[in-house]
Amino acid sequence: MELTSYSEAELKAFYAACRKDYARYQAEGLKLDMSRGKPSPAQLDLSAGLLTCITNEDLQGEAGDYRNYGILDGIPEAKRMFAPMLGVEPDELFLLGNASLQAMYMTISYAYSHGLLGHTPWGRLEKVRFLCPVPGYDRHFKITEFFGAEMINIPMHEDGPDMDMVERLVSTDPAVKGIWCVPQYSNPTGIVYSDEVVRRFASLKPAAKDFRIFWDNAYCIHHLCDTPHCIPPILEECKKYGNEDMVIEFASTAKVTFAGAGVCMMAASKATLADLTKGLSCFTICFDKTNQMRHVRFFDGKFENILAHMEKHRAILEPKFRTVLTALNTELKPLGIGSWTEPKGGYFVSFNAPEGCAKRIVQLCKNAGVVLTGAGAAFPYGADPADRNIRIAPSYPEIPELEKAMALFVLCAKMAAAEKRMD
Amino acid sequence: MELTSYSEAELKAFYAACRKDYARYQAEGLKLDMSRGKPSPAQLDLSAGLLTCITNEDLQGEAGDYRNYGILDGIPEAKRMFAPMLGVEPDELFLLGNASLQAMYMTISYAYSHGLLGHTPWGRLEKVRFLCPVPGYDRHFKITEFFGAEMINIPMHEDGPDMDMVERLVSTDPAVKGIWCVPQYSNPTGIVYSDEVVRRFASLKPAAKDFRIFWDNAYCIHHLCDTPHCIPPILEECKKYGNEDMVIEFASTAKVTFAGAGVCMMAASKATLADLTKGLSCFTICFDKTNQMRHVRFFDGKFENILAHMEKHRAILEPKFRTVLTALNTELKPLGIGSWTEPKGGYFVSFNAPEGCAKRIVQLCKNAGVVLTGAGAAFPYGADPADRNIRIAPSYPEIPELEKAMALFVLCAKMAAAEKRMD
Repeated sequence: MELTSYSEAELKAFYAACRKDYARYQAEGLKLDMSRGKPSPAQLDLSAGLLTCITNEDLQGEAGDYRNYGILDGIPEAKRMFAPMLGVEPDELFLLGNASLQAMYMTISYAYSHGLLGHTPWGRLEKVRFLCPVPGYDRHFKITEFFGAEMINIPMHEDGPDMDMVERLVSTDPAVKGIWCVPQYSNPTGIVYSDEVVRRFASLKPAAKDFRIFWDNAYCIHHLCDTPHCIPPILEECKKYGNEDMVIEFASTAKVTFAGAGVCMMAASKATLADLTKGLSCFTICFDKTNQMRHVRFFDGKFENILAHMEKHRAILEPKFRTVLTALNTELKPLGIGSWTEPKGGYFVSFNAPEGCAKRIVQLCKNAGVVLTGAGAAFPYGADPADRNIRIAPSYPEIPELEKAMALFVLCAKMAAAEKRMD
Repeated sequence: MELTSYSEAELKAFYAACRKDYARYQAEGLKLDMSRGKPSPAQLDLSAGLLTCITNEDLQGEAGDYRNYGILDGIPEAKRMFAPMLGVEPDELFLLGNASLQAMYMTISYAYSHGLLGHTPWGRLEKVRFLCPVPGYDRHFKITEFFGAEMINIPMHEDGPDMDMVERLVSTDPAVKGIWCVPQYSNPTGIVYSDEVVRRFASLKPAAKDFRIFWDNAYCIHHLCDTPHCIPPILEECKKYGNEDMVIEFASTAKVTFAGAGVCMMAASKATLADLTKGLSCFTICFDKTNQMRHVRFFDGKFENILAHMEKHRAILEPKFRTVLTALNTELKPLGIGSWTEPKGGYFVSFNAPEGCAKRIVQLCKNAGVVLTGAGAAFPYGADPADRNIRIAPSYPEIPELEKAMALFVLCAKMAAAEKRMD
């Protein structure tokens, strides 16, 4: 029976029973951090070999001595290996440091201080607007908030952002300069953009000539199923519409090898890369080529080996996603409390609580020792207008812990839902 | 006999003999790049052990799992090891990526976009001026030029920049927001600031509250002598005058371990670090902690071991500096052509040709196969007003090559000086 059909007495009894359970959890002194999509130690162990796979001799590469200065855009061996990951040519790829966020930040910082491809620096404009499909990735929103862009929420559908709204805003408002996208297994919904949505992105007709799609393909090879739907390569799609300068794509091996010590990359048209290089060549002499070479050796220079490595991640992650979904499906579905995604890849499950309940659930979990991502974090300015969304990150805890955390989570969801009804 | 005393006939004969020698060099087909201060392969080999000194287990550190996300400001083990290098407390240190230029760029970028410690962003001001002791480091000037600062040349004396001029400009002009300093073995002069100069820096009374000293201590432990004069720690000095927010210090292991894969750091007051963290926390989740730990293990966590390692660099570098100085002292001094520094550390010898001759010397060397740093590169906007200065970088070539390159260099200097006199 759904909670909405409970009588007042039933509801009171239900809530009292929940409170009793909750007190037991509190007494247990749980201590679990599920706030970020961190890989687990077992996943990190998969790349232990990365640490010892290169010696001094390996660093004499095709383009010189990789221990020394130089080669700003990345070593050719690594570019060739990573290019198929984003479906681009090696010379459309720029390899940077240990985290793709740095590449996004540098791009937006450059757009603000100098302007993209000769356009007016955004910092000199009265108003800059960014479209933000929600829920989305908090660190994206943090960058655009930092630089003072006005962020506009775009609803997410099952096939991607609301493209009618995106097309309307992009084609009519010259202050709209960018959109954040995580097209494959969106953070946190796990949604994969449909081919049609990707095509509509590639064929946008922006009012602003320096409008850019920030295509964060963070989870492009992070599948949790046998026959994944892979989005078409955006740069190639954009070229079909003469829009090759409209997109900048980002990815990294943060969730392939080491979260804090991967290789990040950026793909864009040659003109865009040459333009961004003006800033990047002031920023640094080069990025860490030894780590790029480490990745080349560890994967023997072959993209297929990266894909095979991802299967090992999947073997660890998939049961964790199942644990989360089983708890939600078993405990909340029958009561009609909330809704959630069942992602085929990526790092998160997006839970939508009954309206006005997300903060309360996060608070209840925290008071019993389980830290979740803050409610609202997946929205610009940390403000979820309906106070519904909670990002569940199953990757880090081991399964017994995760089971316990999810048992607490569903309990807290029940309590919050009941409280709301009793209001 | 000095060239200035030559009769016209002697000068002609001298020049003709030089041209003959020069033709022989051209026929030899030399190919040597001395344009940058790159460590040599033998120096890089000293750190070969860095590549294999950590295993998976070593990355479980004091502050957690260093393979994962987190710890934005650097791992405590590395902070403790590096703190004595700059004479600061570990909590006055922030460790970043592979190159200190990134830290300088980020600081200036932040000052332009957001302002330091709540002051007006420099990007919103009519005019921002930077003082640039010359000759100096081209990449410093490139950053400030990129952001549009007006750069003012400050003459260098034997004990550091002209402090009368610095004090006057800093204390009277609120548009003066910064000064670039390489206080220990200045790039390229090798000059070490005297204690008095450091004290005068620390006690500046700037007209602009957000005036900052960019103290690039790149060569703080890069001695080439037994009893080096080490400059006093600037942050401590500044504290004495209530000026602890006035300085940001930079350093790295680029010329300790690997030029492209070291650890860079920034030291400043806690208030300044907290302020800069506002930007850095948008820029990245963390820097590469595995590489920080690699350095900790390689040096066994001890600053003394870093110093011992630097002695090995010295053993390789010192004979190269001697080669350069021998050529200059033997071939040019008797003729009274040019002047040069005899540095006790660092990476360069700064050569001052007769006025108006630097470009010609660089051109002559290039035409015979030896690429030097472009004449004027050590000045803002690449403009050496007297066309005198050439930066000689002895570190990369092996000694026989360096001897040949220097033989060519002194020959070209003779030719250029003779041409000038014959004009």
